[in-house]
Amino acid sequence: TEAGETIRATLFPGDGIGPEIAESVKQVFNVAGVPIEWEEHYVGTEVDPRTESFLTWESLESVRRNKVGLKGPMATPIGKGHRSLNLTLRKELGLYANVRPCNSLPGYKTRYDDVNLVTIRENTEGEYSGLEHQVVRGVVESLKIITRQASLRVAEYAFHYAKTNGRERVSAIHKANIMRKTDGLFLKRCREVAEKYPEITYEEVIIDNCCMTLVKNPGTFDVLVMPNLYGDIISDLCAGLIGGLGLTPSCNIGEGGICLAEAVHGSAPDISGKNLANPTALMLSAVMMLRHLQFNDQADRIHNAILQTIAEGKYRTADLGGKSSTSDYTKVVCDHI
Amino acid sequence: TEAGETIRATLFPGDGIGPEIAESVKQVFNVAGVPIEWEEHYVGTEVDPRTESFLTWESLESVRRNKVGLKGPMATPIGKGHRSLNLTLRKELGLYANVRPCNSLPGYKTRYDDVNLVTIRENTEGEYSGLEHQVVRGVVESLKIITRQASLRVAEYAFHYAKTNGRERVSAIHKANIMRKTDGLFLKRCREVAEKYPEITYEEVIIDNCCMTLVKNPGTFDVLVMPNLYGDIISDLCAGLIGGLGLTPSCNIGEGGICLAEAVHGSAPDISGKNLANPTALMLSAVMMLRHLQFNDQADRIHNAILQTIAEGKYRTADLGGKSSTSDYTKVVCDHI
Ligand SMILES: CC(C)[C@H](C(=O)O)[C@@H](O)C(=O)O
Ligand SMILES: CC(C)[C@H](C(=O)O)[C@@H](O)C(=O)O
Repeated sequence: TEAGETIRATLFPGDGIGPEIAESVKQVFNVAGVPIEWEEHYVGTEVDPRTESFLTWESLESVRRNKVGLKGPMATPIGKGHRSLNLTLRKELGLYANVRPCNSLPGYKTRYDDVNLVTIRENTEGEYSGLEHQVVRGVVESLKIITRQASLRVAEYAFHYAKTNGRERVSAIHKANIMRKTDGLFLKRCREVAEKYPEITYEEVIIDNCCMTLVKNPGTFDVLVMPNLYGDIISDLCAGLIGGLGLTPSCNIGEGGICLAEAVHGSAPDISGKNLANPTALMLSAVMMLRHLQFNDQADRIHNAILQTIAEGKYRTADLGGKSSTSDYTKVVCDHI
Repeated sequence: TEAGETIRATLFPGDGIGPEIAESVKQVFNVAGVPIEWEEHYVGTEVDPRTESFLTWESLESVRRNKVGLKGPMATPIGKGHRSLNLTLRKELGLYANVRPCNSLPGYKTRYDDVNLVTIRENTEGEYSGLEHQVVRGVVESLKIITRQASLRVAEYAFHYAKTNGRERVSAIHKANIMRKTDGLFLKRCREVAEKYPEITYEEVIIDNCCMTLVKNPGTFDVLVMPNLYGDIISDLCAGLIGGLGLTPSCNIGEGGICLAEAVHGSAPDISGKNLANPTALMLSAVMMLRHLQFNDQADRIHNAILQTIAEGKYRTADLGGKSSTSDYTKVVCDHI
């Protein structure tokens, strides 16, 4: 790799098992010759008043400058008044779409072998507004906010994604039969964008029916786009179909072209520091980051090495029923690159 | 059966396939000697101004008087301003809990054979408030309302159900990490009731995690209680695990001890009148009604006859991959009683 091609990317190893699995990513990137220089930022133990969270202003600036990054799990700080670090990141960086490809992994057996779909979640509004109050004693309300702008933005991203990734269908998931105005607005924007993509089939599926179909016949879905809470629920449901969050990559698309790849599993404090963690989700997320950067050759090689290691089944971490350590598993992936 | 024991129950055959599958229930009830006299009410074609829907005032009064009823599918009338008949029923009769036992059916193969759980859905408030408005152009909001009273009522029902049905665990499903006030209030009431049932294990599960666990390992759940929208989603997901809404019974518990059993599938206008519909969900719902009335002997006999017919696999309707007509299938169930 020539020096001039080197890309700077932000790395948030995160809490708990985060640093160990981030180390695995660094190793596979080295072996594959990925021309990335990491700018590493740790989540601290003191609240930065500028962000009101353990994430410092500098760490956010790093992503804004580099426009690309990778994030491990971040524990929500204990104690009143601390904002979740994940939510802080979404808000501060305007991470408007969470993208999760969900594919059955050959060789890793679950009840499903035909999952090949992508969930695209609106990531900034809806039920996550934080607006709640007590009306009178014993009566509380939460506000779900849907805007034209955020709906349009995520719909545009979903169709763009479908087109550039050779996908054929986009399903908008909703409950507009009940929430006619909010989910109705979301659907209107999806329809508007759908008209610009006549080559992509567009359909609308009610969330309860969607979840039933997902567990009966996930092969019927291709790209799913939806408001925040439905995305939260359905993306985890889909992860479950292929084996769980330890195997599911994700990436967040933010304002100004930011791409922040992210393992969405927890920080697993119980096994942290014990060389037992499964780095697969973070590695696969890093592959999404590489594709975003058009490092397709390295992305393919790393991706195939991970799939091959899992398919062979000899080296697996404990969460997948194996006996390998994080470092042994990582070494096998490196050998396969 | 002695005349004095006869119970009057309301029957809403409903739309589409409703009358055919209601006929099946009448037949099995006859064969099993169930001492019930039906008060039948059809959904009309003219809006009754007193109910603002196709459901007449008299039909609602019938349930209020009898306190027990059975309901087939009701299509939502087409055209602006018509309220969904299902929602009208829930509101007018104060149907505060929707109960759906979900059990794998021996002999009917799905990806799961270990489902044995019950979902209990708060059925009157939450995201179903109907309160929505435009804040400014391009910004709309929906209100989710949670009350102390409705939360307590459904929590009490769930624990009572668990205890009287030999269940060991109640899981409250929520997203209180995001909706701290609304889902938080719901959880508080669940905890309050849990303390009165020390013999029942109580746990709280976040909805995204719940859905992932349901698709990976549904056997870990027993009784699930939750706010309205989560119940809508999870109860359909669970139905999917055992084969769909055609096999899933449900019953609604309402104010003043009302029990309205209900098949939750659609009215299937495409096959209506063709003797092709699957009456299983309505029959199993009718069995729930019988258990509510303590007609346990008849309930057991009908229930076993249905399970036996499905397990034998020779007579099944088209939706389950078989070739039987509604009447042939019903006849076999009757023969097994
Ligand atoms: C931790 C929680 C706030 C978060 C969410 O609800 O968005 C998580 O479930 C996720 O999906 O990233
Ligand atoms: C038809 C619709 C209004 C209804 C609901 O959302 O409650 C349905 O999905 C159900 O579960 O009975």
